[in-house]
Amino acid sequence: MSTDPHPDFFARHTDLLHQAVERAAARDYWSPYPETPSTSAYGAGAPEVGEAAFRGLLGRPFPLEGHPTTGTVPAAEISPYGFPLGISYPWLVPEAAVATAKAAAVAWRVASPDTRAGVAAEILARLNAASFEIAHAVQHTTGQPFLMAFQAGGPHAQDRGLEAVAYAWQEQRRHPATTRWSKPQRRGGPLVMDKTFTPVGRGVAVLIACNTFPTWNGYPGLFASLVTGNPVIVKPHRRAVLPLAITVRVAREVLAEAGFDPDVVLLAAERPEERTAPVLATHPDVRIVDFTGSSEFGDWLEANARQAVVHTEKSGLNTVVVDSTDDYAGLLRNLAFSLSLYSGQMCTTPQNILVPRDGISTDQGPRTADEFTADLGAALDKLLGDPGRAAATLGAIVNAGVLGRLEEAADLGRTAHTSREPAHPDHPDAVVRTPLVARLDAEADEKTYTSEWFGPVSFVIGTDSTAHSLRLLHDTVRRHGALTASVYSTDDTVLEVARATALEAGVHLSENLTGGVFVNQSAAFSDFHGTAANPAANAALTDPAFVTGRFSVVQSRRHASAEEHVHA
Amino acid sequence: MSTDPHPDFFARHTDLLHQAVERAAARDYWSPYPETPSTSAYGAGAPEVGEAAFRGLLGRPFPLEGHPTTGTVPAAEISPYGFPLGISYPWLVPEAAVATAKAAAVAWRVASPDTRAGVAAEILARLNAASFEIAHAVQHTTGQPFLMAFQAGGPHAQDRGLEAVAYAWQEQRRHPATTRWSKPQRRGGPLVMDKTFTPVGRGVAVLIACNTFPTWNGYPGLFASLVTGNPVIVKPHRRAVLPLAITVRVAREVLAEAGFDPDVVLLAAERPEERTAPVLATHPDVRIVDFTGSSEFGDWLEANARQAVVHTEKSGLNTVVVDSTDDYAGLLRNLAFSLSLYSGQMCTTPQNILVPRDGISTDQGPRTADEFTADLGAALDKLLGDPGRAAATLGAIVNAGVLGRLEEAADLGRTAHTSREPAHPDHPDAVVRTPLVARLDAEADEKTYTSEWFGPVSFVIGTDSTAHSLRLLHDTVRRHGALTASVYSTDDTVLEVARATALEAGVHLSENLTGGVFVNQSAAFSDFHGTAANPAANAALTDPAFVTGRFSVVQSRRHASAEEHVHA
Repeated sequence: MSTDPHPDFFARHTDLLHQAVERAAARDYWSPYPETPSTSAYGAGAPEVGEAAFRGLLGRPFPLEGHPTTGTVPAAEISPYGFPLGISYPWLVPEAAVATAKAAAVAWRVASPDTRAGVAAEILARLNAASFEIAHAVQHTTGQPFLMAFQAGGPHAQDRGLEAVAYAWQEQRRHPATTRWSKPQRRGGPLVMDKTFTPVGRGVAVLIACNTFPTWNGYPGLFASLVTGNPVIVKPHRRAVLPLAITVRVAREVLAEAGFDPDVVLLAAERPEERTAPVLATHPDVRIVDFTGSSEFGDWLEANARQAVVHTEKSGLNTVVVDSTDDYAGLLRNLAFSLSLYSGQMCTTPQNILVPRDGISTDQGPRTADEFTADLGAALDKLLGDPGRAAATLGAIVNAGVLGRLEEAADLGRTAHTSREPAHPDHPDAVVRTPLVARLDAEADEKTYTSEWFGPVSFVIGTDSTAHSLRLLHDTVRRHGALTASVYSTDDTVLEVARATALEAGVHLSENLTGGVFVNQSAAFSDFHGTAANPAANAALTDPAFVTGRFSVVQSRRHASAEEHVHA
Repeated sequence: MSTDPHPDFFARHTDLLHQAVERAAARDYWSPYPETPSTSAYGAGAPEVGEAAFRGLLGRPFPLEGHPTTGTVPAAEISPYGFPLGISYPWLVPEAAVATAKAAAVAWRVASPDTRAGVAAEILARLNAASFEIAHAVQHTTGQPFLMAFQAGGPHAQDRGLEAVAYAWQEQRRHPATTRWSKPQRRGGPLVMDKTFTPVGRGVAVLIACNTFPTWNGYPGLFASLVTGNPVIVKPHRRAVLPLAITVRVAREVLAEAGFDPDVVLLAAERPEERTAPVLATHPDVRIVDFTGSSEFGDWLEANARQAVVHTEKSGLNTVVVDSTDDYAGLLRNLAFSLSLYSGQMCTTPQNILVPRDGISTDQGPRTADEFTADLGAALDKLLGDPGRAAATLGAIVNAGVLGRLEEAADLGRTAHTSREPAHPDHPDAVVRTPLVARLDAEADEKTYTSEWFGPVSFVIGTDSTAHSLRLLHDTVRRHGALTASVYSTDDTVLEVARATALEAGVHLSENLTGGVFVNQSAAFSDFHGTAANPAANAALTDPAFVTGRFSVVQSRRHASAEEHVHA
């Protein structure tokens, strides 16, 4: 029946979308995009093709055909593994970006949620196919080790993207597009009205992405805004433009094939001397902001981007309460890996490890806080002793800010386990550091541990007791926020109290992780990331609240025509 | 199995709750609470018993047994029908109210969404049984005519309340309370985690209610907050305390019967010299605010109650676009009634009626804007000529602010139809006014019609053309907001453009209302009230966005015990 020359992406992805809605609601294990960087999952030659695509981007202007531009953003990205990417990008001043996005979105706004969800699913399918290219781009902008860059930057980010698509699509389908309202009257026939309910996007969206997880943290907002009918201006971090430039390229390609103006998705890279995020976020026509980054700027956005709904993920004090364990070796191994993974540069990495000064009971006998600290240091040494495994775990340090904090932590003079600078076997110029562990006291060092030390800096903090640790967990998280909390105990009562404490503090809790699951991991379609219930984030990835503010349902109503309803 | 002595209100209302969820999603006609103030619906003697209950409240302290208090709020309410109510209330200073609510909510927060929804449904059932008492309370605080006070203040408000209960309950049931996550591994058995998902209320809620529709506008926020696990401090308007005092009395009675601390719902009436709303709304422990009232204070709340999610319904410019009609008599009758109902003191009453200067085409021939204005005046005279019908339609003027605006409108010197002061047949001291209609021009009088004239003041505004009218509709609503828009046209193209314009402006549209449905009416379970898409309101009654911000889902996870999953 249709003479539309454009491919029907919704038809292509209907099953996937329905499945995504179902699995997001079930919250059990599901991942539509294979996490293994293997040829069996991605096809023969995929690793080489992806790497070649990445190499082909280096040292020249990024190809974004037809993208509006007001000049050039000179090449500035430098791989934490020690070489400049040499890629320049189109420059687009905020006023032009907003005006272009707004003008481009006319057809996108009136397209159906089905159509928009289909386009989004196709974008994700092509991003998935580009996972190796994206992995290299993520590795060499964030410093993540390759496997992590592949997984977190590729399929896991795509999972999070599809999760957002599912909620956004489903939420727009909760009410019928049309309905007939028939109200009985005391005398005569009923009053009959035909009503129309139309989801309408809120307006231009701006995604302000971060340096460390540009795609994983960026895709939920990007796709939630898109599917709810909004154009999106992608404002990447100046040191991690490439992964999102590739994303924008793919999105624009699919939009154009679907018959939409590709300017529904725009890249707004900034020049070295610019700071465009505040300008974009407070533009009167910008109605949605998604942000991952510092508490300082996140709080500023919440206070100042008053014309927009603002979703923020900021910083916090991820906390571990250690009470007792029946698998001390597993605890140490698990915790050492959590501190080491990507050199602690995850918003979910534990910082404050609360241990009763007098010690904990373990299957290897009691351990004082000091002994625990030494054991943790030994576990770190064991994990990171092999150079290859160290490199594959730590990755590289993302920027000078992290290095500075590491030096500052060393200057505290409380170091229990020193940060080392292991050589990277493949990248001699990579900036690699192992975690520093400092031994603090709950009372004396409150000022130190109640601010965030993003990077490979963690504290073993001596407390009076586990009860004291739980009080500290509650109070510090309520005041300063956290994305993760963790407890180790063999005592059911302690676990119960820890659960109640975490609920009151509004933070997700992991209990007794000693195996192959780590507190820093958050699996799309099962784990919510953030709660919006403590200062670390005002949104969760992804729940209904993350999408409901991005559109309104606008209604029209009229009398049903008499011939249609007179006998109803 | 249960030895709980408390009645199981959830079991009692399960069917109703499921039905409410289903019908809210369907958006067709449904009203669980009978809107007719009849003995057949409410039982023999119900009218007399309700009136006697109201009379029994007059002239003495309002009975709120066990309600915490820091003194007395002296009697101050005066019926717009001409007599003082003479009712004093417990006084509760903001700091004490917040501390008491917070402390009282411990068990309420951890109760299940089912339990909370059951309690809410029981409160609504008892409010419904008290509809006559509430009707008199609403009539004599707001000035609404009795039938409207009964319907809008009683069953229709209860409908809105149940609608909020349905969304709040459903939203907390979207994810399972527990789930098992089983991730296949390349080697060995799967990783298996047990996960718990718990909805946790955001914190103390404050309802800041209005003078004109204390229950209809108040119940959605009250019930949405309650069902999502939050205690609610009800801060009534100083001139309309009684309807919400009765509501609080009923809520506390049900909470206590269900075994909860009745202080989960508190009344915070203010003394004449106080202004507690800003203090309550910005208290650090207040995490949810619902407000109906002026744009000035609503905007202030949005800007300043930063620690809370703030839901506002403010003021706007409700607009009618008149292009053409094939039922001119019906149009005039319908519009005259919309302007007259409760003397135009509804947030949904049309203010700006846009008519091409050169005229419109009707089944009675062409009419210029001036002729249309005269015809509308005649329709008002016809509708309000009978003193009984006038009184039953107009009710009384709620406060001196409305009277002042009416005088100010007369002073514009553009009156086309004068406001009269008909005598009320039953209440000689009632303050009754008929609508004033002024004849303005789109260009010359922009300043006048782009502010809200809440009350019986409407403008027929001459425009260049219907296209010009539609542009004005768009621009004024986007800039100043509106809760309703309406169009009259026999031209399908005009209707299409009007729909598109209303979608872009973000306002609900009614088309060609000439019969027994009026633009000011909004039926729970079918019509959304407000869109959150224009400045008149940042929330809609009731959609998912209205409830999602009131709670978070907080998660815990742990390895499944080996014996349970080893063969899974």
